[in-house]
Amino acid sequence: MVEQTQHTKGAAFRKLHQGPEILLLPNAWDVASAVLMEQAGFPAIATTSSGVALANGFPDGEHIGRSRMLEIVARIAERVKVPVSADLEGGYGPQPDDVAETIRQAIGVGVVGANIEDSAHAGNQPLVPTPLAAERVRAGASTAKATGVPFVLNARIDVYLRDARGNEAERFAETIRRAHAYRDAGADSLFIPGVSDPTTIRRLATEIGLPLNVLGAFSGRSAPPLHELQALGVRRVTLGGSLAMYGWAMVLRALAEVRSTGRFEYATHAMSNAELNRLMRETEAQRA
Amino acid sequence: MVEQTQHTKGAAFRKLHQGPEILLLPNAWDVASAVLMEQAGFPAIATTSSGVALANGFPDGEHIGRSRMLEIVARIAERVKVPVSADLEGGYGPQPDDVAETIRQAIGVGVVGANIEDSAHAGNQPLVPTPLAAERVRAGASTAKATGVPFVLNARIDVYLRDARGNEAERFAETIRRAHAYRDAGADSLFIPGVSDPTTIRRLATEIGLPLNVLGAFSGRSAPPLHELQALGVRRVTLGGSLAMYGWAMVLRALAEVRSTGRFEYATHAMSNAELNRLMRETEAQRA
Repeated sequence: MVEQTQHTKGAAFRKLHQGPEILLLPNAWDVASAVLMEQAGFPAIATTSSGVALANGFPDGEHIGRSRMLEIVARIAERVKVPVSADLEGGYGPQPDDVAETIRQAIGVGVVGANIEDSAHAGNQPLVPTPLAAERVRAGASTAKATGVPFVLNARIDVYLRDARGNEAERFAETIRRAHAYRDAGADSLFIPGVSDPTTIRRLATEIGLPLNVLGAFSGRSAPPLHELQALGVRRVTLGGSLAMYGWAMVLRALAEVRSTGRFEYATHAMSNAELNRLMRETEAQRA
Repeated sequence: MVEQTQHTKGAAFRKLHQGPEILLLPNAWDVASAVLMEQAGFPAIATTSSGVALANGFPDGEHIGRSRMLEIVARIAERVKVPVSADLEGGYGPQPDDVAETIRQAIGVGVVGANIEDSAHAGNQPLVPTPLAAERVRAGASTAKATGVPFVLNARIDVYLRDARGNEAERFAETIRRAHAYRDAGADSLFIPGVSDPTTIRRLATEIGLPLNVLGAFSGRSAPPLHELQALGVRRVTLGGSLAMYGWAMVLRALAEVRSTGRFEYATHAMSNAELNRLMRETEAQRA
């Protein structure tokens, strides 16, 4: 019964990547944000590793560790009915087996998709070398396949984000090389953060050979609007940690206003305690 | 050394309740919000039980349980240098011993203040009868005293919040009766949520015989401005779960805007990933 539900969720999630509509997939960082996104009508939800890490007191980049990250992912996945895709950073370990174990545990807590990135979390290179990165993708994809749960392994290519060497042509060529290696290793979609130029996005969408995921916003920079991204061939737009970081920024702004004006104006825009409690009781009851 | 630090924090926190300035004490619900409030210069931080519960997927009202609540409180208390006061609901059990155990564990994770409320979390009365409620305050206060850590036991009186029976004169009289009983039992301050009328607030501040804590905002209703509250005799203003609920509301609004306009405008107002990561690394290093 539970397996069937996860199977159905996974199939629905895979379908959301096949167009023609672009998939806007918001990133939750705690249970409240996930439940509220579901209530707002989003057909699927992702998590944000930076948001989850920061909320729990860790800098981004695997400091939180696999078990604590999966604990939060599990709480989110068990409380919403829509498909959940987890941002699992570099898979919490350098080897293909580490990625496989992380994907196995993630599917065990109910997710039907995951990001695995090629940023290196150890060593002195910004990125994992392509052959090893591809083996890591292969390990994750084949682990997911072996469970029988329809799954979207979203392989993240961090060339634009992390690799400052070279010029634009080299970055593009390196991105395409990695894209094809990850596709051949079994990735279902490719996430390329750090691109916002329409021409580059269109070329990526055309050449990578899998559904393209870009960031709508990253550290204050915005991508082209959603309809333009769709026209450029993008299939999935995620928001990374920007929603969490927007919420915290708005709270700081509200506190600055209270201190400068003495007034509690912000509270007229807050959600009500009663409404949120009702939502949590309802979703808790659904689960039981 | 750790004990000395907690002792110093506790003494500083007690002093913040002695005026002449009113204490604006913001309520955090996760580590990021607490760290950001500290960075914004607040001299002390409270937690919000509703915010913590909702962030973790529970309705308010002790559903989260003592150990999970204290786990979050501990993560917050270990990451900020300023004094932390924990919202500990009804103390996670009906008996005075339950409150004593909760206060003992809370001091063990580093807090120097706590709210204990007289809302009943079981049975069919809205409030714990006054004699038992006073014994619960006594158990908490004497437990704190026995540790030697200077502490602010903030006893919450929920007559205005929960007890719909009677008229205003009866509610006021019942509040004063409870105030004096909790004061005599060893409370250090009294938290009376649900009042916003200036005349009532002034009379409470005059008659309760301890520092008065009111809510600046609750479920969209605002109290008089901070300087007016100070003139009325209020010593401490907290914000309950309203900051958390404002943050979530702003995120939902941002998502609605993305869906309706296709643009990611909100992201220009988000905090930067780099800035938050730096903050977490710095506070992590301080702790180590």
